[in-house]
Amino acid sequence: MTQPRTAITFAPPVMEARRWLDGVSHPADRPLLNVSQAAPVDPPPAPLREAMAQIVLTDPNAHLYGPVLGLPELRTEIAERWTGAYGGTVSPDQVAITSGCNQAFAAAISTLCAEGDEVIIPVPYYFNHRMWLDMSGVKTVPLLAGAGMIPDAAAAENLITPRTRAIALVTPNNPCGAEYPSETLRAFMSLARKHKISLIVDETYRDFDSREGSPHDLFTDPNWDDTLIQLYSFSKAYRLTGHRVGAIVASPARLAEVEKFLDTVTICPNQLGQRAALWGMQNLDAWLAGERLEILDRRNAINEHFPKLAAHGWELLGCGAYFAYMRHPYGISSAELAPKLVRDAGVLLLPGTMFMPDDLPGGESQLRIAFANIDRSGIETLFDRLSNLPY
Amino acid sequence: MTQPRTAITFAPPVMEARRWLDGVSHPADRPLLNVSQAAPVDPPPAPLREAMAQIVLTDPNAHLYGPVLGLPELRTEIAERWTGAYGGTVSPDQVAITSGCNQAFAAAISTLCAEGDEVIIPVPYYFNHRMWLDMSGVKTVPLLAGAGMIPDAAAAENLITPRTRAIALVTPNNPCGAEYPSETLRAFMSLARKHKISLIVDETYRDFDSREGSPHDLFTDPNWDDTLIQLYSFSKAYRLTGHRVGAIVASPARLAEVEKFLDTVTICPNQLGQRAALWGMQNLDAWLAGERLEILDRRNAINEHFPKLAAHGWELLGCGAYFAYMRHPYGISSAELAPKLVRDAGVLLLPGTMFMPDDLPGGESQLRIAFANIDRSGIETLFDRLSNLPY
Repeated sequence: MTQPRTAITFAPPVMEARRWLDGVSHPADRPLLNVSQAAPVDPPPAPLREAMAQIVLTDPNAHLYGPVLGLPELRTEIAERWTGAYGGTVSPDQVAITSGCNQAFAAAISTLCAEGDEVIIPVPYYFNHRMWLDMSGVKTVPLLAGAGMIPDAAAAENLITPRTRAIALVTPNNPCGAEYPSETLRAFMSLARKHKISLIVDETYRDFDSREGSPHDLFTDPNWDDTLIQLYSFSKAYRLTGHRVGAIVASPARLAEVEKFLDTVTICPNQLGQRAALWGMQNLDAWLAGERLEILDRRNAINEHFPKLAAHGWELLGCGAYFAYMRHPYGISSAELAPKLVRDAGVLLLPGTMFMPDDLPGGESQLRIAFANIDRSGIETLFDRLSNLPY
Repeated sequence: MTQPRTAITFAPPVMEARRWLDGVSHPADRPLLNVSQAAPVDPPPAPLREAMAQIVLTDPNAHLYGPVLGLPELRTEIAERWTGAYGGTVSPDQVAITSGCNQAFAAAISTLCAEGDEVIIPVPYYFNHRMWLDMSGVKTVPLLAGAGMIPDAAAAENLITPRTRAIALVTPNNPCGAEYPSETLRAFMSLARKHKISLIVDETYRDFDSREGSPHDLFTDPNWDDTLIQLYSFSKAYRLTGHRVGAIVASPARLAEVEKFLDTVTICPNQLGQRAALWGMQNLDAWLAGERLEILDRRNAINEHFPKLAAHGWELLGCGAYFAYMRHPYGISSAELAPKLVRDAGVLLLPGTMFMPDDLPGGESQLRIAFANIDRSGIETLFDRLSNLPY
């Protein structure tokens, strides 16, 4: 008897890590530092919460089914913003709304792949991408990230087979924090087009990129939608994680296929979350700019304080978006180290092994810190604890 | 090159039907009667909307990620309610929350099936079930509904093969409206257990069942969770369609597999919708009882006025939940008739062909009316129009 789809893949890493907290108490002078999940810990800003309450009370449509591909006004707003921000042209019929960015990835893969097909993804990877490929019967072909945790298009070309349907990149990267250079994305776009496969670019963390202006010029290609599938999330920008709103930007023909998937899996994205995302885009530019500066300052704090860890043999492999990706100096696997850190240091973080296939080396010496949850002083405390481990 | 998953299946019927409205104008004295989608047209009752607005303003957690399997308080409330309503015992670890009931079905199938497996479903079927089976690489094995649109377990047994993983029933049924007798469900449960396959029972329309008390006794079996997977929706009971909240009731071991699917596809159900569902269960019993009586009265109105259509050769095949399922007397396929009815009668309904595999007969003479959207006078108007067609 064949294994059902979910049996092929592993348990959700974030939920597994939460279970390490069970039965562990933290002394009052050493509260838990949870840097495991890439999520804001605060709710949306008060004006957005007030706008949402008003919508709940006054807009009946915010409670009813809507179009499968999302609220037309939100699709239009995204198209206009993208056209302005990236150059080139994105039209509303090239935009669909999803119940979060994970769903956008799942939908994209379902329009591209059948059983036994292959998708190339850089490692370390975002584990939910691997899980969906597993559950879809698609083979994950790992591309080892190169210098600066940046993948190389030429190396990727060697991995392409007749079954390859796409290359999927995340930039700024989860878990590595690397901001992929514009030329890197351009090279992957050319490679994908040459081989008639798709290039998926997940820009969940785009709003916290340290670079000013557009992070790439892929949309300036007038035929971008023959190859590019871009994914986006509203969870981080406006702290709407609990409302599940993401987006997929692709050709209208592909979105007609996406519509089948979304209709069957959730019927439509939730209506209030979509209106909240729209309100955020229309009213929170200045606020979001401040949020970005705060995250960039935390990133600076990581870099400033890292010498304290480096003195104990740690190495900073990547730092950006919400993430610092590190090599630890201990002679045990990160899979064993991470649960120990809950007890021994009051720190919850994820081991590199969660971001790698079991048969690839490297992950056992790596750890991911999601620093969006801790401010400058929290980062100092975190590094104090990590530099005083009893190993 | 193999076809990607979405290419295997058809476009969402509800969205296709909406497109029949494009470019058609309706005279002021004959407004459109939209009986195509099974959805309340009004928002939740005012007290629930006010409670939701308060939650938006005062509960930060309503905006943040929560557990993949749902809000613990909601899981507990469901477990207690089910234990009381069905007899037997349902515990919180046998309940998970999903982003709508379609997602509950998708998750269940992903825990059961691999490429090439088979699932038996009565026809006419709920088309989204067929779509998900298609996209999962699972073969839909149709079981023709028998007398009163009720499927027969003995007939189903003939369809079981070594690749069969489940039988999926919807009661009260979409699209037929049939309320499956308790003995029917018991017979399917025995059949499934005998063959070591699962029985999926989708009770989305349970709150509008015309029978008093529990519609079946499957949960009184102390080992129910070795076979039964029950699905539920909060969309209809509390008019929360736009918030996407459903549930799956199954063994804890199966829910650990469900967790993989849900985490990867949406991370968690939306937090506000879950709190709204919980508030509804705790505060809206009397209101829901009234809603049920209203729906049952509309069902009575269908039966009372049907003779007008019967006089023109129509036949009522099933009536219950939100649906009347009918045979029309015209010599053209329902696939052709339904779009014509938009122009000729100002009526949007779905053709039986949408609920049947292409290679099975019957659907071309059938039509589904979702009558939750129209009151008694709307039903009279609808039947007036359908009994005066120019065919």
